[in-house]
Parts: sequence; C-alpha cells; structure tokens
Amino acid sequence: MNQYTVATLLKETNFKEVHIKGWVRTFRANRFIALNDGSTINNIQCVVDFENTDENILKRITTGAAVAITGDLVESQGKGQSVEIAVTNIEILGDSDAETYPIQPKKHTFEFLRENAHLRTRTNTFSAVMRLRSALSFAIHKYFNDNGFYYMHTPIITGSDAEGAGEMFRVSALDPKNPPLTEDGDVNYKEDFFGKETNLTVSGQLEAETYAMSLGKVYTFGPTFRAENSNTSRHLAEFWMIEPEVAFMDLAGNMDLAEDFMKSVITYVLENCQDDLQFLDDRLFNEEKTKPQAERSEMRLIEKLKFVTENNFKRVSYTEAIDILRNSKPNKKKKFKYIIEEWGADLQSEHERFLVEKHFKSPVILFDYPANIKAFYMRLNEDGKTVRAMDILFPGIGEIVGGSQREERLDVLKEKMAALDIPEEELWWYLDLRKYGTAVHSGFGLGFERLVMFASGMTNIRDVIPYPRTPQNAEF
Amino acid sequence: MNQYTVATLLKETNFKEVHIKGWVRTFRANRFIALNDGSTINNIQCVVDFENTDENILKRITTGAAVAITGDLVESQGKGQSVEIAVTNIEILGDSDAETYPIQPKKHTFEFLRENAHLRTRTNTFSAVMRLRSALSFAIHKYFNDNGFYYMHTPIITGSDAEGAGEMFRVSALDPKNPPLTEDGDVNYKEDFFGKETNLTVSGQLEAETYAMSLGKVYTFGPTFRAENSNTSRHLAEFWMIEPEVAFMDLAGNMDLAEDFMKSVITYVLENCQDDLQFLDDRLFNEEKTKPQAERSEMRLIEKLKFVTENNFKRVSYTEAIDILRNSKPNKKKKFKYIIEEWGADLQSEHERFLVEKHFKSPVILFDYPANIKAFYMRLNEDGKTVRAMDILFPGIGEIVGGSQREERLDVLKEKMAALDIPEEELWWYLDLRKYGTAVHSGFGLGFERLVMFASGMTNIRDVIPYPRTPQNAEF
Repeated sequence: MNQYTVATLLKETNFKEVHIKGWVRTFRANRFIALNDGSTINNIQCVVDFENTDENILKRITTGAAVAITGDLVESQGKGQSVEIAVTNIEILGDSDAETYPIQPKKHTFEFLRENAHLRTRTNTFSAVMRLRSALSFAIHKYFNDNGFYYMHTPIITGSDAEGAGEMFRVSALDPKNPPLTEDGDVNYKEDFFGKETNLTVSGQLEAETYAMSLGKVYTFGPTFRAENSNTSRHLAEFWMIEPEVAFMDLAGNMDLAEDFMKSVITYVLENCQDDLQFLDDRLFNEEKTKPQAERSEMRLIEKLKFVTENNFKRVSYTEAIDILRNSKPNKKKKFKYIIEEWGADLQSEHERFLVEKHFKSPVILFDYPANIKAFYMRLNEDGKTVRAMDILFPGIGEIVGGSQREERLDVLKEKMAALDIPEEELWWYLDLRKYGTAVHSGFGLGFERLVMFASGMTNIRDVIPYPRTPQNAEF
Repeated sequence: MNQYTVATLLKETNFKEVHIKGWVRTFRANRFIALNDGSTINNIQCVVDFENTDENILKRITTGAAVAITGDLVESQGKGQSVEIAVTNIEILGDSDAETYPIQPKKHTFEFLRENAHLRTRTNTFSAVMRLRSALSFAIHKYFNDNGFYYMHTPIITGSDAEGAGEMFRVSALDPKNPPLTEDGDVNYKEDFFGKETNLTVSGQLEAETYAMSLGKVYTFGPTFRAENSNTSRHLAEFWMIEPEVAFMDLAGNMDLAEDFMKSVITYVLENCQDDLQFLDDRLFNEEKTKPQAERSEMRLIEKLKFVTENNFKRVSYTEAIDILRNSKPNKKKKFKYIIEEWGADLQSEHERFLVEKHFKSPVILFDYPANIKAFYMRLNEDGKTVRAMDILFPGIGEIVGGSQREERLDVLKEKMAALDIPEEELWWYLDLRKYGTAVHSGFGLGFERLVMFASGMTNIRDVIPYPRTPQNAEF
C-alpha cells in the first residue's frame, strides 16, 4: 500500500487501494470530503460510506482537520474530477474545531488573512501564490545555472553605508538603553559586535561586481531591506532581490540578457504552474468584475504573461520616450497626474504604463537616462549628461527591472563619488576593481516580489511573501 | 566571430578564429599568456607573436590585466592542454600594475586573502570553492524541486525571540544615542519601525512548520544569524541554512529524507564539478603533507565525498552510542578531552568523529537524544526522557545535520514551553498549528557553510563564504 500525494493520485489511471493524508477542505452531505495536501490546488474527493462509519468519527470530519484515509481509487461519478476515493477507513489525525477555526469554508478578506498569515496558505488563493512563488524561484536558479552563471551570497549585514539606495536598518548588539559613548559623546561603535556601525544591506550589487570581475557571470538572490516608512501596497521593509552581474557585457548585452531571462522564467511558470495560474487568472477576472469598467485591466492574467513571452521588448531611449509622452493625449489633456514638461523628468508608473499598454503595446526597455536621476556607479555616456541605465517596463506594473552598464573608468568613478560626497575609503575595494584589470561590465536588479505580483495578479505586495515586514508589523 | 568562454573553448575540437576576453593569470617568456575568465579553473594558453607585437602592449600584459584576444584556436604543442590560441590581436582592456596588484602569481596566505576578499576569487583555490558553493546551492534547489518541495522565504527580521537557538542581533531604526523611553525608563520599542523589538532570525523552522502544515513539503534556504562572540574557524555571525519541513513524516522518514538529500547533493558536485574538486583534493593533500602524520586525515577529499555517497548511513540510538563510547579505547585510556561517563552527556566533535571514522566507518545518524539537551519543540518519546531528535555525523567534521520530529500534541508542547518560560502569547501562531489539524511532522537543518567546508576540504569557515561576518569584522 503506497502513500501518494493528491497531485500524483489525480493523474493515476490504475485503480487500486490507496492511502493518503491531508486536510479536509469541506465535508458535505455527510459523505463527500474535499481533501487537500498542498501538493496541488486541486482537491481529491473522498466518498465516505457514512452508514458504516462511526458517528463520532463523522462529527470530527470538519474543515481544517487532518485525516488519514485508506480507500479504493475509482472512476469518479461526479463532475470536475476523473477519479475519487471510495473510503474504506478514515482516521482523524488532528481535529479542527469548526466553531473557532479561523479559515472557514467561505470568502475571507485579504486583510483578515494577513492577520492569520500562518494559516492563509490553507486557502486556494494563497496556496496558489506561494507555489507560484516557489516555481519562479526555481526558474530563476535554473536559468542562471543553465547559462553558466554562479550563484553568490552577498552579505546581509554591511559595514558600508555608501550604496545610497535608501534608508537602512541598524544592526547592533550594544546595550540599546545605555550604549557606550566616545569622548565626543557619540555612540562608540568600536565596542559593537563588528567593531563598527553596521546596517542591513540595500543591495548586493557592489559585492556582486567583485565576483563578476573574477568569475565572469554571477548572480545574487537574497533578502534586501529599506527602512522607509512607506505604508503602501507596493513597499516592503524586507524583500528579495535578484541581481545578475556580468563581466565584458555592455548595456546592449544587458538588455538581451534581461529580456531573455524574463521571458524564460515566465515561460517556465506558464508551462509548470498551469492549474495555479488558471485559478489565479479566474480569481483576478472575478475580482475585476466588481470594479468600474475604466479601472479593469484590458488583459487577463495569462494573456498578460503571454504578452511578455510573445512580444519583442521595444527598446527606446529615455529622450525618445520623453518626446512621445510630451506629445501624448493624456499629457496634452492633462490626464496624467504628473505632466511631462521637459527632458530630465523622472517617469512615474502612469507614464511607464502608457508607453507599454497604449503606445507600444509591448514590454518596453527604456535606456540612456539622465545622469542626475540615476546612481553614481552607472556608466557615463559620451554626451556627459546621460548614463547607460535601463529600466524594463511591464503592463499593469510599470518598472520591473532596473539595470546599467557600470562605470569602469577609475577617474570618472572617483569624480562622481566626490560630487556625491561618497568617501573613497568606504569603497576602496570597489575602486580596486577599476585599478586592477578593469573592464566593461553590466547587470540589473529585479525585485522578486514585483515579479510574483506580476505573475500572480495579486495587487498587494503583502500577499506575495509569506510574512511581510512593513511599518508597525513584524508578526510571526 | 563568436565570443566563447574558456570553459567552452577548452572543449572545442573545431579549429577556427575565436575571440575571447579574460584576465591574465601569468605571462611568461614574453610569449605565453595563461588566460582565465572564471568559467573554469583551467586557463587557456594564448601564444603571443611577440616579434610582431608592439612592445608597449607586451609590457602591459601583466598578472591581473583584462585583455581581449583574437586568434586561431589550434592544437596545443605544450603539455596539459589540448588546444591553445595563436594570438593575432590583443587589446588591453584594463591594466594591472604589477608592482601594486595584491594577487601576485605566488602562494598567498589565506589570512592575507581574507583581507583582500574582493580579489581572492582571482586565485585558483577561491574560484574553485565559490564555483563549488554555487553548484551545491543549485543541487539543493534541484533536489527539493524534483521531489515536490516548495521553496519558502522565511522572514529575516523577526519579532519573536522565543526560538531560543542563540544570541540575537537587534534590528532598529531608533535614534541609537537617545532612544525614546517608556515611563519605566526602558527603550520604547513601540516607537521603533515595527512597533516592537525586532531581531535577526536564528532559524526559519517555526515559520517553515506553518507552511508544511498547508503545502505539505517545504524548505527554506536563507541567511541566519548568531550574535555570539565566537572567534573560531567554525563560527560565523551570518551564515546560510537549509531547513526542509514535511507534514505527515515521522523521524524514520526524516532520516530517509536527510540521507537521500545529502547523497544527492554530493553526487551532483562529484558529477558536475570534477575539475574544481580535483584541484581542491590535490590542494588539501599537499596542505596535509606539511602536518604530522597523526593529524592528517585518512581520506583524501574525493574519497571522503564518496564515503558519504557510497555508504549506508548507520542509524544508532543515542543510548547505544553512549555505550559504545563509554567502552571505547580512547575513553578508557582517557584520550578523549571529554570523558564520557554517563547517559545524558552532550557529545563533542571528538566523540562524533570516533563513531564515524573508527567505530562504524560510515556516516552515522544518532537519534532519540535526552530531552534536556535538545530544543523545546522536539517530539517527546513515550519513555518521557528522550526526544525524537537526530543528528547526522560526517567524517572530519562531526555533526552536519540536526533535525527532529516536532511535538504535535498541544498539551505536551504547552507544558514544555511553560517549563522553559516561553510565553504562549509569543508563539500563539505556532500553537495554532496544534489546535487546527495537527499531525506528525518533521524536518532538519543543514548549515550551508558546513556543507561547503565538507565538500571543498577548506578548514576555516571564513574561506567558504564570499564576505564572512565575524566578531570585529564586517568589511566589504
């Protein structure tokens, strides 16, 4: 007698005695158990012979209860499934009090489920999202491994605060109430665990560059942090980032890599997560029906994923994009919240979505941005005012990838750091890369949760990570 | 004209014009460049026609310089390689000052290389170690994906301090010098970013249990932290852990899983990292030659890896192991540093290695440990004094995996928490798993750097992670 998962059983065509464990999703007519074990979004129907089953057992078959079932796999009489189990024995492994169990067999609000995040993967929506998240992770590792990249774990605790990507969390083992002080009355971090002030990293890019300049092609996939008090549906204090970095690759190569990578991981989930994606596609469609027509998205979820895999990403310079936007209807009719007036403007999500969804009707890669709205490490173009940066824009979500060719010239990099008051002593090792065997190199960053939102159709970033960290919230 | 990597070129048999970029490892006789691009530990020899090359270019071909080479791939005349490049053109992309470049073509101490960790992957040893680390990571993801596990990102910042696995780092955005105080004069964490005191996680296990109890089979692979002032070759303040967790799996199943998993990932690197492993095997052998005979390991590196893949792991109860150790020669002759006197003793690395290397001559799984030397969440046996814990012991290193069946009974778990003063309010969500559909479940933890040490033969944990975090050190 073998033990199966629901996923394997639903594919069985060989009828026989089976044994399976899982949780009761519903129990109706004192007869039909919908059993789920997390291996798939689908339940297997288990038909209880209630006339020959102890009434005390029947009472304990409640939503959320863990059960062990033995029975015969038979062709299903009902609709929607090909097989079911005619139960010959059922054992209650763990009860679930129907009165108090938070996950009732009805629709719960996402807010309620966030408060019960330890149980929310017992619902169809969240189990689908988290299986999809796992599949996307694997697709990412597989893509890079198949393409000769090495995975690198960049440090989480960093002694450098020169990255400049945002507010940082302090990491300390000092007495929080009475920290040791220097003669000048400042906190004396020399006495802290690491002998210096340390923070949680905002990016692994600079360290990834050190490995690209020796191993050639590397990528990071790890947690990053922002201590910004942004209480929105798009921000987390703790989120996961993917950052590939490649030696001898210029901005054009970077665009090729990013396009191929994004298409590859999305193709992977289209091929490997059909049931979960179909469920999420239907879920989003039904949710959108409740919205006014104008706010609904024009594409269903799976359509949007195919829009990415089936279109060439249109490559457009920032300068060209500004021209298009300045002359666009919503800009002239002042329908944009932020009107584009001149070159140098930072683009907002509304502009990015206009370019993708209305103008080009394809994913877009913008490149050659004004230097002063981008980071210090980006390669300055010969025009002296733009840098070799690129952003990839997707439908519904706007910017999903940001990358650049890195400034490989020591003198230019030093000038840019000086202009921004970034001390050379802080980044001596980063400068060394330009002193010894420097070369053109490039990379990009992808916020993993933005990708999961895009692929799942979930609209709040708190619903695509197991235990979200946001202002005032570090529960579980 | 295609661009190749050194790895692909060395496998080419089709002679033709090629173009390649990389870094000069050595340049001898004004003629032979050993070129490396990180794709493999092997260099490709590039033969410069020095009579027809500008002397100013020749001077700039120094160790560490980045170069672009065009030439004809030809059969090699020299030993040790099948092909080489007859250079027709060489361009210096980035110079490397031979006087100041830290990575000279000679043997450096590991301590010196730790101080230059941003450049150390430009050496054979560290490039091999980090490629191996990457391959082990992929093998882990692949194993779990192939076996129906879902990858889960457990939180890094935690509001829970009940895990009890060690000292924690505090994460805060409060003013470090003048934190807000409560009326009682304590730091008022209600005003901190998360509205409570938060720390860096020591383990993702408890959260992984929540997902196992809905998705069935899950695993984590993420950074964990200890603020312990341990300045040893075996401890890091920041390290990566793998923690699978499986519903409906008991301790015997846990042992099966762990053995199959360890064998699988080590088989993967034996099959996919032959060149790097051979280099590391030779390196270790040569290093050990300098030691007194008694301190050398009995097995070479690759032998030790095969010792794991080719032997059945011997399963021995703690009680049986204590008997064996008590009656062992080194115990009776007081050769152990810690003499085993009675049941209840915590085993040290010397005891674990004796069992593996001398007594059983195979990897060993010890199980059913005394409850009072193990964590609160482990399943109490019917004897009331042992728990369903297991440790896997490997040659040379001792314990490499620690796991257990988890206490699934609400009343027993509550009693154990009360005995240890762990407040129920802290772990209300963990207790919920025992209230609603509880079931037998198990999992284990593997310190990733311990695995990389074992597989690479490196003896200092600081040499198997890109940028180690240890007391007084958070450089880069």
